[in-house]
Amino acid sequence: MKIAVFGTGDVGRCLATRLAGLGHDVVLGSRTADNPAAAAWAAEHGGRHGTFADAAAHGELVVNATGGTVSLDALTAAGAANLDGKVVLDVSNPLDFSGGFPPALAVPAEGSVAEQLQGAFPGARVVKALNTMHNALMVDPSRVDGPHNVFVCGDDDGAKADVAGLLRSFGWTGERILDLGGLAAARELESLVLLWVRLSGVLGTADLNFAILR
Amino acid sequence: MKIAVFGTGDVGRCLATRLAGLGHDVVLGSRTADNPAAAAWAAEHGGRHGTFADAAAHGELVVNATGGTVSLDALTAAGAANLDGKVVLDVSNPLDFSGGFPPALAVPAEGSVAEQLQGAFPGARVVKALNTMHNALMVDPSRVDGPHNVFVCGDDDGAKADVAGLLRSFGWTGERILDLGGLAAARELESLVLLWVRLSGVLGTADLNFAILR
Repeated sequence: MKIAVFGTGDVGRCLATRLAGLGHDVVLGSRTADNPAAAAWAAEHGGRHGTFADAAAHGELVVNATGGTVSLDALTAAGAANLDGKVVLDVSNPLDFSGGFPPALAVPAEGSVAEQLQGAFPGARVVKALNTMHNALMVDPSRVDGPHNVFVCGDDDGAKADVAGLLRSFGWTGERILDLGGLAAARELESLVLLWVRLSGVLGTADLNFAILR
Repeated sequence: MKIAVFGTGDVGRCLATRLAGLGHDVVLGSRTADNPAAAAWAAEHGGRHGTFADAAAHGELVVNATGGTVSLDALTAAGAANLDGKVVLDVSNPLDFSGGFPPALAVPAEGSVAEQLQGAFPGARVVKALNTMHNALMVDPSRVDGPHNVFVCGDDDGAKADVAGLLRSFGWTGERILDLGGLAAARELESLVLLWVRLSGVLGTADLNFAILR
């Protein structure tokens, strides 16, 4: 599949690398066409890179791995025409590190980044997933033992099915993919990251995840 | 132990019943001395009931199971002198049902109910725990299979040790009691309840809990 990955930080490069390794045709997008991190990634992994608009024009599916506080800017730079009808897998978190560590949550007025993006780009099919764990675990759930979960939510069932397929290809078995319903659940998923940050500090590892037991 | 339980709703009565069953000397506290729910509980379980001040004067440990939006009022009615030096186990959640279901989080300006109570009553030793699950599970963790967790936080290590002892008597084994550090973690624990509400709706059960796997 042709996939755009927005964001050249750890999360974006990790997802882009895994997707390229699975045989997808990945373009890593950033604000500028000459982003050094994107160029280095492309050289190492035989992928390509470009602006957000270049990547979105290429992708049949768009992964938003930019910081949640700048995600709206990234999608705006990509352009509505390049997002129309496409699944946008939003893995972002609106963390504000301006006050140091631990970060605060910079929740958009609309309630969550995912809803903010969906509201601004009604033609896109936004699905929130994967934002509640470290990037290494996103693409390799076997790093943590036991029946831990990846949460998914969105208003478009077909888009969620597409994302579930991608998640299965990462190693997430079907029963581990927990559909929380509509995109409004992104509020809880984005809030959860602050608990993750605290747990990671207390437990001294990023290889941890939430499991819902019953 | 002499224990005060504040709150005559499902959570308060459930905790009071379990504590009385374990042999503790429980006084169920409410706004008025003639609360019918408290009187009915006392008659059924051979316990006693009274005002928040009556209960707090009796208790060596105080369980706050009032709604989070009225907890400060309840402790104010109990009086600082009756709380001084005592462990206050805060299981409350600041849920606002004024907009219907699902509820919104009515977070106090201080960040969490637990911090609000600690700030108002510096002589009390506030510990947040148990607020992230249904009351039936609080007192009987065997209702859910697997290594699910109860989170604990607070600024007083001795108070947390006392609460951990109480949790063990409910059936929570030591490795299941996850100490998140200082009381500021109550912000994440109180936020988590909205995810619990959503999960309970999606999964169709209240017998669920969070497990932190690693």
